[in-house]
Amino acid sequence: MGDQVIFNQVCIIGVGLIGGSLARALRQSKSVKTIIGCGQNESNLQRAVELGVIDQYDCDPATAVENADAVVLAVPLGVMPDILQQIASHLSENCLLTDVGSAKASVVSAVKSVFGRLPKNFVPAHPIAGTEKSGVEASFADLFQHRRVIITPTISSDNDYIELTRKMWIACGAKVVNMDVEHHDDVLAATSHLPHMLAFSLVDTLARRDDRQEIFDYAAGGFRDFTRIASSDPDMWHDICLANQTALLKALEEYGDDLNRLTEAVRQSDSAYLKQTFRRAKQARDAYSDKKQS
Amino acid sequence: MGDQVIFNQVCIIGVGLIGGSLARALRQSKSVKTIIGCGQNESNLQRAVELGVIDQYDCDPATAVENADAVVLAVPLGVMPDILQQIASHLSENCLLTDVGSAKASVVSAVKSVFGRLPKNFVPAHPIAGTEKSGVEASFADLFQHRRVIITPTISSDNDYIELTRKMWIACGAKVVNMDVEHHDDVLAATSHLPHMLAFSLVDTLARRDDRQEIFDYAAGGFRDFTRIASSDPDMWHDICLANQTALLKALEEYGDDLNRLTEAVRQSDSAYLKQTFRRAKQARDAYSDKKQS
Repeated sequence: MGDQVIFNQVCIIGVGLIGGSLARALRQSKSVKTIIGCGQNESNLQRAVELGVIDQYDCDPATAVENADAVVLAVPLGVMPDILQQIASHLSENCLLTDVGSAKASVVSAVKSVFGRLPKNFVPAHPIAGTEKSGVEASFADLFQHRRVIITPTISSDNDYIELTRKMWIACGAKVVNMDVEHHDDVLAATSHLPHMLAFSLVDTLARRDDRQEIFDYAAGGFRDFTRIASSDPDMWHDICLANQTALLKALEEYGDDLNRLTEAVRQSDSAYLKQTFRRAKQARDAYSDKKQS
Repeated sequence: MGDQVIFNQVCIIGVGLIGGSLARALRQSKSVKTIIGCGQNESNLQRAVELGVIDQYDCDPATAVENADAVVLAVPLGVMPDILQQIASHLSENCLLTDVGSAKASVVSAVKSVFGRLPKNFVPAHPIAGTEKSGVEASFADLFQHRRVIITPTISSDNDYIELTRKMWIACGAKVVNMDVEHHDDVLAATSHLPHMLAFSLVDTLARRDDRQEIFDYAAGGFRDFTRIASSDPDMWHDICLANQTALLKALEEYGDDLNRLTEAVRQSDSAYLKQTFRRAKQARDAYSDKKQS
């Protein structure tokens, strides 16, 4: 950490909450001289320049990545293949290629498909940070402070590029860990993708009721916390569902079975089952909470 | 609102988060001269006296309610019938009898069964407030500020007692509304009881995995918010499940069907269904959030 230039020029494709926060954090830590933003929405990029998040922008990925010594893909997972196609032949030979996608196997697969192989300078990564908000206006430099970033190197990732990726995130205040691609996707399906499905589904179920107005009127603080993640970007989450389909389905089915058992226990007034389930859950949640605080 | 004595002596049976916070709020608003606490755990009641939450305590409900002009049942729903049995013949003739239970039909039914009728001085109520914490140590006077309290008068509830109940909660800073018992139980099943089931079930599902340690290590902020309610008191929630069984089962089944449909949409890569569901949910959640803020 500290004021050490890591990159001359970084190109961030997708200047939203994550891409914008990364730009802010890199700038704040003086880790990069110039930050180029790239995206489809020009007014968003203009706003990013006004906010001082990026130095310049270029709406064309092909030219945006030229002269960059690091390119960070921070677009929704569904857009990755198209962007990779556009930039593949324009990357400098020694340019780090990395991303911030919430699922990793799909990105690795897209890179392999576009490049015909896994380049040694490609290092997939995923910062475990975010809020339910979207867009550059919601970005802030401290988003990654004390958060974990999971790097999932491919078999071809060169150690120098892995180290560069690590340095970049450490400069943002994050704690960096390595993980297998498949294991990452499995863990994230359980801890992030599944809860988002449950929250989206709950709010949708309630929003379709005739008494929805009253329902939301009488929803208290627990409901507010529980459903906050249902405010997340719908299109981004659509992409995550499809990108991490296999692991997410496994998590959804496992959860569905457990919820059916709990429903049956309510129906049968099975006190022992209910108490045991609630106690085990409380114990795990309290232990998790204590650990996070310490 | 304001410094107006409403009761000479209030007996609060169950001095936990809700009972303790009610005592603090009544004291702060100078609405009551003396507060008697009652409960099974004597050291908890001693602590409540030390904290200045109650004036005195009495572990025997029968004697605790004597001379009270209001008795508030703030015990878990499963304990209500037993407490009612113990106090029924000891209540003063003009004593308000009210409760704070999260489900109302079961309390009304218990009162009817114990008294052989619905007394005119019985007014069921439910403050829509709380945290995931329990016990008198977690209580605070402002818990009910700007929160709703739902009063569900029975066909026999006398207007004077309804008015007394309303005054008591307004003195605590709450907004008081009336509702039918059945409708209350239905709305609360959807907005509170169902989300608690989903959170308990999720944390339990994850806590039983072999990689649970890692799972919780990589759980980010969204997960923390989403699962906070899984730290709630297991025994209290067991009682709520059984007390509001019918409405909760309806909500669980409706949700289960919707979650199955969503799972199927993930399996079929049904982009239209996923986007529509997530967008509708986000829209409803954002509208709810905006309304709560304004």
